Amino acid sequence: MIAELAKLPGVGAKTAQRLAFHILSMPDGDALGLADAITVAKAELMFCSACGNLTDVDPCAICSDPSRDRTVYCVVESPRDAQVIERMKEYKGLYHVLHGVIAPMSGVGPEDINLESLIVRLTKSDEAREVIVATNPNIEGEATAMYIARLIKPAGIKVSRIAHGVPIGGDLEYTDDVTLAKAIEGRREL
Amino acid sequence: MIAELAKLPGVGAKTAQRLAFHILSMPDGDALGLADAITVAKAELMFCSACGNLTDVDPCAICSDPSRDRTVYCVVESPRDAQVIERMKEYKGLYHVLHGVIAPMSGVGPEDINLESLIVRLTKSDEAREVIVATNPNIEGEATAMYIARLIKPAGIKVSRIAHGVPIGGDLEYTDDVTLAKAIEGRREL
Repeated sequence: MIAELAKLPGVGAKTAQRLAFHILSMPDGDALGLADAITVAKAELMFCSACGNLTDVDPCAICSDPSRDRTVYCVVESPRDAQVIERMKEYKGLYHVLHGVIAPMSGVGPEDINLESLIVRLTKSDEAREVIVATNPNIEGEATAMYIARLIKPAGIKVSRIAHGVPIGGDLEYTDDVTLAKAIEGRREL
Repeated sequence: MIAELAKLPGVGAKTAQRLAFHILSMPDGDALGLADAITVAKAELMFCSACGNLTDVDPCAICSDPSRDRTVYCVVESPRDAQVIERMKEYKGLYHVLHGVIAPMSGVGPEDINLESLIVRLTKSDEAREVIVATNPNIEGEATAMYIARLIKPAGIKVSRIAHGVPIGGDLEYTDDVTLAKAIEGRREL
C-alpha cells in the first residue's frame, strides 16, 4: 500500500507511510469506501462525447441540463479548469474541454486537441452565439485562443477571451509589468 | 546607528546589527554617500504641485516633459504606484497621485485625498480626454474609482478603470473565484 500511495503527486515515502498507517486505523467502512470510490471512478468516469468533460453519464450533466444557456460555449484546457469555473457558480453556459493547448514547441498541433468536435458542435447548433476562450494566460493559451478565433469568427460566432489584469484584492505594487500593461491596455470605461 | 536602522520597515534588531556592521566595513565614500543620499532626499524631495508625485523639481519631470501625452491622466494612490507604472515604460500620459483612497470605514472622505486638484487640472486643460483610474483592486480602490467617474464624466471626459482578471503567466486553477468571475465578465472580443 505504501508503494502504491507513493505514486500519487506530492506524496513521498514518508507521507505515503503516514497515509497508509492512517488508512489502517480507519474504520473498515471508510477504508473500503475509499477503495471503492477509486474503483468506481476509474470504471465509470469517461469523457462526455459532446463537450469532452469528465462525466459518469454521457452526455454529461451540464450538456444535458435544459436550464443551461446554449448560446455560450466556454473553452477550457482541462476538466479541472471547467470545474474551477463551475465552482464559481456564475457561469451558466456550456463547456468545451480541449484536453490540451496548441503548443508547436512540443509538437502539439490543432489536430492533437479536442478542437474539431467544437467546430462540429457549433455547426450543428443553431443557437451558438459566443465562444469564450478560457485557456490559461500563457503563450500556448494565447496562441490557442487566436487560432480558435481565426477558425470560428468567419462562421459569424463571436469569440472572446477572458480578461487579463490585476487580480481582485491584489496590489499594483506587486503586479508584474506584463500584467500591468495588459490591465491598462484592457481598461474598461466606467 | 543600530537603533536608527531598526526603525526601517522589515528591519529587526538582528538585521539592524548586521547592516550597521556592514556599513562600518564599507569604504568611507560609500557610507557617507548613503548618509548624504538620505539627507539630500529628505531636503530636496517634495510633491509636484501639479500631479502630487514625488519630485525634486516643481513641476515634476513628467508634468513638464513635452513628449508626454497630455490627453490621458492616470490616477494612482501613491507615488510608488506611479513609479510601478512608469517602470513598465508603456504608459506615456500624465499622472495624478491621490495620496490615499476614499475609505469611509477609516473616516477618509473625498476631501481628505488629493482629488480637488485633479478637477482643477482637468478644468484648466483643454486637451484632457481620458482619466484612467489605477487605484488598487480592492473595495476602497473600486469605490474611489466609482466616485471619480461620477465626478468627472459629466464634464465629457472619459473615465476608465484598469482591467481585472487573470494575471499573465498565471493558472486558472489557482485563480480565486472573484477574479475569475471578473475575468469572464470583462472578457474581450478577439
